[in-house]
Amino acid sequence: MRIAISTGGGDCPGLNAVIRGAVRTAVAKYGWSVFGIEDGLQGLLRPEPLRPLTPASVRGILPRGGTILGTTNRGNPFGVASGELGQEDIPGKMIARLEAEGIDAVIFVGGDGTQTIAQRFRERGLKVVGVPKTIDNDLDATDYTFGFDTAVGIAMEAVDRLHTTAESHDRVMVLEVMGRHAGWIALHAGISGGAHVILLPEIPYSFDAVLAKIRERQRNGLSFSVVVVSEGAYPAGEAPSFRSHPGKSTNARLGGAAEQLVERIERETDFEARATVLGHIQRGGSPSHFDRLLGTRFGYHAVELAAAQKFGRMVCLRGTEIGDVDLLDAMGQNKQVDPHGQICSAARAIGICLGD
Amino acid sequence: MRIAISTGGGDCPGLNAVIRGAVRTAVAKYGWSVFGIEDGLQGLLRPEPLRPLTPASVRGILPRGGTILGTTNRGNPFGVASGELGQEDIPGKMIARLEAEGIDAVIFVGGDGTQTIAQRFRERGLKVVGVPKTIDNDLDATDYTFGFDTAVGIAMEAVDRLHTTAESHDRVMVLEVMGRHAGWIALHAGISGGAHVILLPEIPYSFDAVLAKIRERQRNGLSFSVVVVSEGAYPAGEAPSFRSHPGKSTNARLGGAAEQLVERIERETDFEARATVLGHIQRGGSPSHFDRLLGTRFGYHAVELAAAQKFGRMVCLRGTEIGDVDLLDAMGQNKQVDPHGQICSAARAIGICLGD
Amino acid sequence: MRIAISTGGGDCPGLNAVIRGAVRTAVAKYGWSVFGIEDGLQGLLRPEPLRPLTPASVRGILPRGGTILGTTNRGNPFGVASGELGQEDIPGKMIARLEAEGIDAVIFVGGDGTQTIAQRFRERGLKVVGVPKTIDNDLDATDYTFGFDTAVGIAMEAVDRLHTTAESHDRVMVLEVMGRHAGWIALHAGISGGAHVILLPEIPYSFDAVLAKIRERQRNGLSFSVVVVSEGAYPAGEAPSFRSHPGKSTNARLGGAAEQLVERIERETDFEARATVLGHIQRGGSPSHFDRLLGTRFGYHAVELAAAQKFGRMVCLRGTEIGDVDLLDAMGQNKQVDPHGQICSAARAIGICLGD
Amino acid sequence: MRIAISTGGGDCPGLNAVIRGAVRTAVAKYGWSVFGIEDGLQGLLRPEPLRPLTPASVRGILPRGGTILGTTNRGNPFGVASGELGQEDIPGKMIARLEAEGIDAVIFVGGDGTQTIAQRFRERGLKVVGVPKTIDNDLDATDYTFGFDTAVGIAMEAVDRLHTTAESHDRVMVLEVMGRHAGWIALHAGISGGAHVILLPEIPYSFDAVLAKIRERQRNGLSFSVVVVSEGAYPAGEAPSFRSHPGKSTNARLGGAAEQLVERIERETDFEARATVLGHIQRGGSPSHFDRLLGTRFGYHAVELAAAQKFGRMVCLRGTEIGDVDLLDAMGQNKQVDPHGQICSAARAIGICLGD
Repeated sequence: MRIAISTGGGDCPGLNAVIRGAVRTAVAKYGWSVFGIEDGLQGLLRPEPLRPLTPASVRGILPRGGTILGTTNRGNPFGVASGELGQEDIPGKMIARLEAEGIDAVIFVGGDGTQTIAQRFRERGLKVVGVPKTIDNDLDATDYTFGFDTAVGIAMEAVDRLHTTAESHDRVMVLEVMGRHAGWIALHAGISGGAHVILLPEIPYSFDAVLAKIRERQRNGLSFSVVVVSEGAYPAGEAPSFRSHPGKSTNARLGGAAEQLVERIERETDFEARATVLGHIQRGGSPSHFDRLLGTRFGYHAVELAAAQKFGRMVCLRGTEIGDVDLLDAMGQNKQVDPHGQICSAARAIGICLGD
Repeated sequence: MRIAISTGGGDCPGLNAVIRGAVRTAVAKYGWSVFGIEDGLQGLLRPEPLRPLTPASVRGILPRGGTILGTTNRGNPFGVASGELGQEDIPGKMIARLEAEGIDAVIFVGGDGTQTIAQRFRERGLKVVGVPKTIDNDLDATDYTFGFDTAVGIAMEAVDRLHTTAESHDRVMVLEVMGRHAGWIALHAGISGGAHVILLPEIPYSFDAVLAKIRERQRNGLSFSVVVVSEGAYPAGEAPSFRSHPGKSTNARLGGAAEQLVERIERETDFEARATVLGHIQRGGSPSHFDRLLGTRFGYHAVELAAAQKFGRMVCLRGTEIGDVDLLDAMGQNKQVDPHGQICSAARAIGICLGD
Repeated sequence: MRIAISTGGGDCPGLNAVIRGAVRTAVAKYGWSVFGIEDGLQGLLRPEPLRPLTPASVRGILPRGGTILGTTNRGNPFGVASGELGQEDIPGKMIARLEAEGIDAVIFVGGDGTQTIAQRFRERGLKVVGVPKTIDNDLDATDYTFGFDTAVGIAMEAVDRLHTTAESHDRVMVLEVMGRHAGWIALHAGISGGAHVILLPEIPYSFDAVLAKIRERQRNGLSFSVVVVSEGAYPAGEAPSFRSHPGKSTNARLGGAAEQLVERIERETDFEARATVLGHIQRGGSPSHFDRLLGTRFGYHAVELAAAQKFGRMVCLRGTEIGDVDLLDAMGQNKQVDPHGQICSAARAIGICLGD
Repeated sequence: MRIAISTGGGDCPGLNAVIRGAVRTAVAKYGWSVFGIEDGLQGLLRPEPLRPLTPASVRGILPRGGTILGTTNRGNPFGVASGELGQEDIPGKMIARLEAEGIDAVIFVGGDGTQTIAQRFRERGLKVVGVPKTIDNDLDATDYTFGFDTAVGIAMEAVDRLHTTAESHDRVMVLEVMGRHAGWIALHAGISGGAHVILLPEIPYSFDAVLAKIRERQRNGLSFSVVVVSEGAYPAGEAPSFRSHPGKSTNARLGGAAEQLVERIERETDFEARATVLGHIQRGGSPSHFDRLLGTRFGYHAVELAAAQKFGRMVCLRGTEIGDVDLLDAMGQNKQVDPHGQICSAARAIGICLGD
């Protein structure tokens, strides 16, 4: 059998673990040939041969962030928005290329957009297997995906660091972390870092509630506070603060949520406030052990699905076990923080202000 | 309501998160009083008053390892092995002390031994809630406990470091990690660190199989190997290598498993081999975000169980949700690595030697 | 003898090491009494007693960032700019307070501003000893101060992380680090992180030179670049980009240098560019071993100077030895990066663009 | 010009930075050709061609530990001890090979042994430049070498971790770190980690003094202690505890110094004591920013020496500047901890027991 692997969407620590796990399983256990498609699916449209992936070529990539195959946020082959791809039947060209290369099946590693593309290819007859990837942890079909754990770890370390400077200077330190539509990173990093206020896209916040918390602390002799805010958090009654950057990918403008809050605190109170925006640091660098193991297991199971001819499915984590779901059941099922779920209830019980 | 908290057994990153989560929930949400019992249960036998725990007294402990209450491996109040406690009715004295202090319920944070003690107290009428703690991850009643994630992270970083020195010197580097009866730390750290051989207590190993792997790598031009071994791993046909130290707690002798392997490699082959024994470093220091959040949630849910008068139960993690089980169902249910489970199958598929 | 310690200016990892080193030396070696002045010198104007510092009260602070004494950027007692302090003879009040408390000498831990204040107090008869503190490493009187090493470590880790995401996405990643007037952090973090372009306040940059480097890399098949920029870096012919925030301390506005560069790259080229601004994360958190040891040694030597009645001097590091200089020789002697010094020459030789 | 690079002796974080710095300087600034000699000097005796080193081939190695050229502790070409090399004129063969390859000069990166070999080659007419490497920091000719900073950082983190477990369990935790003849790592990691006892090869220790310190702490209510011990530390009146392993390299036996101390504490007192032996973890893994920058600068300056035809010299660090010394002045000048120097005096003043 000959299979190909593609990584799409934003990069994520653990992608290389998936590639390595799939390649080693396919080659060592099944004796298959594996090929990498470069830069999302763009590599299928280029004249260069697909990249052969062997145990030797994936050696040493486990601890490395990013993806050795490259990725891109641009260019949905099925999309009308894809100006660069024009009116041609791009998916058809891609399928033809795969057939010409003798590829039997493709493993699509990516988020909701990528899995939707995988499903569209499936509808046109391609044998596909999905591996979920979302650093924001917002896919409902799986308990966790790789990358999220690493991102939370980086964000929590930043919260730890801000504590000491906040306390030394009696300041309100605001840390903006990733999460446009789901506040998982802010929630996990905020609780584990000991933040006093956590603001999420799922709970439009009351500025008065935030101020009340900061002032309650001040009355208790704690004249500093640490706030963790998702990039997609916004005040109740207003629109989300992040903006797209026309013609480029959409996360060109960071920091809006944090700056909005800092400016208002400084304008309306006597507190000194400072914003820090972690940005891309959260998705780079060496993956945590959790993400390396999960990525490895996902890669292994994706190949097992192919070996069992179970196509059109996406691997997922449920508890401690890897399972799989139909791509149709995985698509578009976003997982947001439940404002009244267990974790938010625990956060409020221990005195964290969630903006409501 | 007045509740007390005790931490028992070996220390574990995340214990302070449990204490803080429980105290803040009990005080802020329910207005209860909380007291800490120092050094396991020893504090109940001393004349000093129990230690009042307030939001102020747990401030700043979230990122700190260990337990502010102290702990001990000695002294099961129900045990005949407990020479220092003698023939008296120690549990009765402890219950009397708790009654004298007006304590309504006790949260026991600890491993299998501690939960068994909690159950014995329950049988004598004490209202108890259990919080599981095992750095080895060997409790069947919960998917994970706090401390394990931190330990695996430390162990994986050590594996990462050994790779470069192994490769530069063409050596076999052997890392011994915790795990006398369960190999979870070795398995997770070994896979995520890219080890070539992983030896677990659950799979008595064949030295020939280990050598075969090292030599297969050499034939492929890779004249170095990294081996991760649980302290409780041992060759098939022999007894486990770790030994107790009479009169002191039982982990006085580390390094047996690694040294045994290194000596044999050096004696029977031309390879240079070196042992590293992580020891107590694995259980000290600041907890990972996973362990801080899980500890916080466990502390919160333990208080919620008490508030709901659901005594005799232990909190647990199932998937992403916290639940609870009867102490009777939690006791003695050890969780070992399944040699034919998903993770071991993935490990073998990607070419890792598990000693069999 | 009775001495007091004050920490002034921005917080810095290692301040607690200085306090601990001074307190333990003064108490254990000399049997003195030590007192802490809170929030810079503000504590001298408050009715509360000075804070007694003992070996017990400094226990456990070595690994902690910030300063247990608090600090402030506001309020030079000699300054006309100090609106909140008014027309009174504030320094005289402070000296009177110190006399009333029986304080024989004061250790001033702080940057250029703080040392200037120490010198002014010296001129009014106070016995003073200085300990230099500047996270930017811009004091000429000492090879290094504590805090700088920790900041460079944090910044370098961020550069490491940006590499993988830059490479996966073919982007220009721009990291802004601290340094308004001196580019040491950018220079050290940039070289050690493997940045391709490093922009410093000392070398006003040519945008064309930056673009030329990015395009040279692209021609070599490397369609990504990592740029490290000091907050005080600016294009040749323009003014520095950072702006003060009136009425608050001056670093309210971060990110200007990075944003300016990113906007221009995106406007004038086809490259995707992204800015990350580390901000206060660089000065918080646990100090590196270098900063803990240097802070400890500075604290020890400051007390030794007092014991030897060598007042009016500031401790400093020269090579591996601690020495001391007259405060008059230390003040206002800023140390900037020499554009033609050894490090810049090495940077250019290995192919790094310094903007010129 | 055509130059070669060799890395000898134990591996050390920063070796790749030296190689990269030298290669990029030689190629980009001077247009030379550079070749790597593999596995110390062994590559000169093998039929394979020398390894061409180009900017492309050193790409990405800066953050990686170890050395891409490999190294070995075996085989001094001038040594009678070198059983494997026999009676031939090995150095002559090596020089002939270098001439045959057209190599004009060789950069020797290594410790005292390697620099002595470089000097011997120099005496036979080879143009040589030395770059010092010693993770133990025991070369007198330079303030610091790369690798030491990384090792101290790893050791200090271990000390930090042992604190929490020591305190939770009321134990004496003993950490053994590298340093057979010089105690720099123990001294720096011990002070920066807040150890209570530090034992060095330079100060044969009194067990009674160690016990006195532990008991003094106990009397102050601190029933735990952290001890950092160099592998070469030993009791006064006895011989050093580490032993060589015949026929293999000499560091086969670690842990002797720690075990000796732990056994005696457990035998003669009621304290529980535990040993941890860091071993090879200290020399593996990604280098610190200090070591990456210093390695880069050493590599650059080594090429500058060659370009200036200043052969027979070794680069060194003095304060913040790179200089160079004659190899004859560098050889055999070991730098040990001065028991009465500044750092030991500071350690004693803040209450650390140095065993005397």
